[in-house]
Amino acid sequence: MEKEQAIQDALALADDATIAMLGTNGDDGYPNIKAMIKMENEGLKTIWFSTNTSSKRVAQIKRDSKVCVYFVDMDQWKGLMLVGMIEVLQDMESRQRLWRPGYEKYYPLGVADPDYSVLRFTAQWGNYYHALSNVSFGV
Amino acid sequence: MEKEQAIQDALALADDATIAMLGTNGDDGYPNIKAMIKMENEGLKTIWFSTNTSSKRVAQIKRDSKVCVYFVDMDQWKGLMLVGMIEVLQDMESRQRLWRPGYEKYYPLGVADPDYSVLRFTAQWGNYYHALSNVSFGV
Repeated sequence: MEKEQAIQDALALADDATIAMLGTNGDDGYPNIKAMIKMENEGLKTIWFSTNTSSKRVAQIKRDSKVCVYFVDMDQWKGLMLVGMIEVLQDMESRQRLWRPGYEKYYPLGVADPDYSVLRFTAQWGNYYHALSNVSFGV
Repeated sequence: MEKEQAIQDALALADDATIAMLGTNGDDGYPNIKAMIKMENEGLKTIWFSTNTSSKRVAQIKRDSKVCVYFVDMDQWKGLMLVGMIEVLQDMESRQRLWRPGYEKYYPLGVADPDYSVLRFTAQWGNYYHALSNVSFGV
C-alpha cells in the first residue's frame, strides 16, 4: 500500500465515520477506550467531539491530554489510528459550532450550560490498516 | 440500569463480538488502539487473541501489560470496556488452542512458528454503556 493511497483511504474512513473510539490515559496507568460521536473532522488533522463537562473522560483529559482516536470499518477490516493531543473547550464559538437541535435534552441550560464541553483533537501522526498491510504517516 | 442486567448485557455483547479494540500504552505516553479478532472469551474474565510476535503491539505489551479491551455495537449504541492485564504466551497448549485452519498463510512454519503468539487478557473490572447510562463492575 502506497503512503499517498493510504492517507486518501484513511481520509475517506474518517469522513464517512459517525463514531470514533477515543483512547485516553485512565486511572493507575491503564489505557481507556470509549466510543464517541464524531461531530466534525477537518481532514485528518482536527476532530471535534462534544461531551459532558462532568464526565470521567473530561477529568482524564484534563489530567493528561495525550490521546488517540480510532476509526474502524469492521466489515471491510479497515482501521485508522490518529495519535495526538485533545483540548477541552468551553468558549462560545466552539460551543455554538457543535450545538445541534435536541441537545437541550442533554444540556438543559442550553449552549451556555456549564456541563456542555467541546473536545478538539489535533493529530500528530496516524497509522492506517487494511488488508494485512499498514502504513504510518505524519498528519 | 441494574448492575446485574448490565453484566448480562455486557456478556452478550462480548460473546457475540467477532472483533474487539485493544487499548495499549504506546510510545511517549500515548494510548494506542487496534482492532483485533476476538478468538475466544471465557465470560468477561478472559479474552484470547493471536498475533505476530514481531508486531508493534506485542512489543508494547511486553513493555507494559496494562491494557483495555473494548467491544462496541455501533448500531445499538452499546459499549463495553474491560480493563486488566494481558500476557504474551508461546506455550504449545495456548498455540494449539487458538490455531485455526488457514493460519499457515500468516505463520508459514505452522503452530510452532516463532512469529506466532497468543495474547491472553484477564479483566479486573468493566464498564458497560447503553442508552445514556453506564455501570461499572468488578470482573
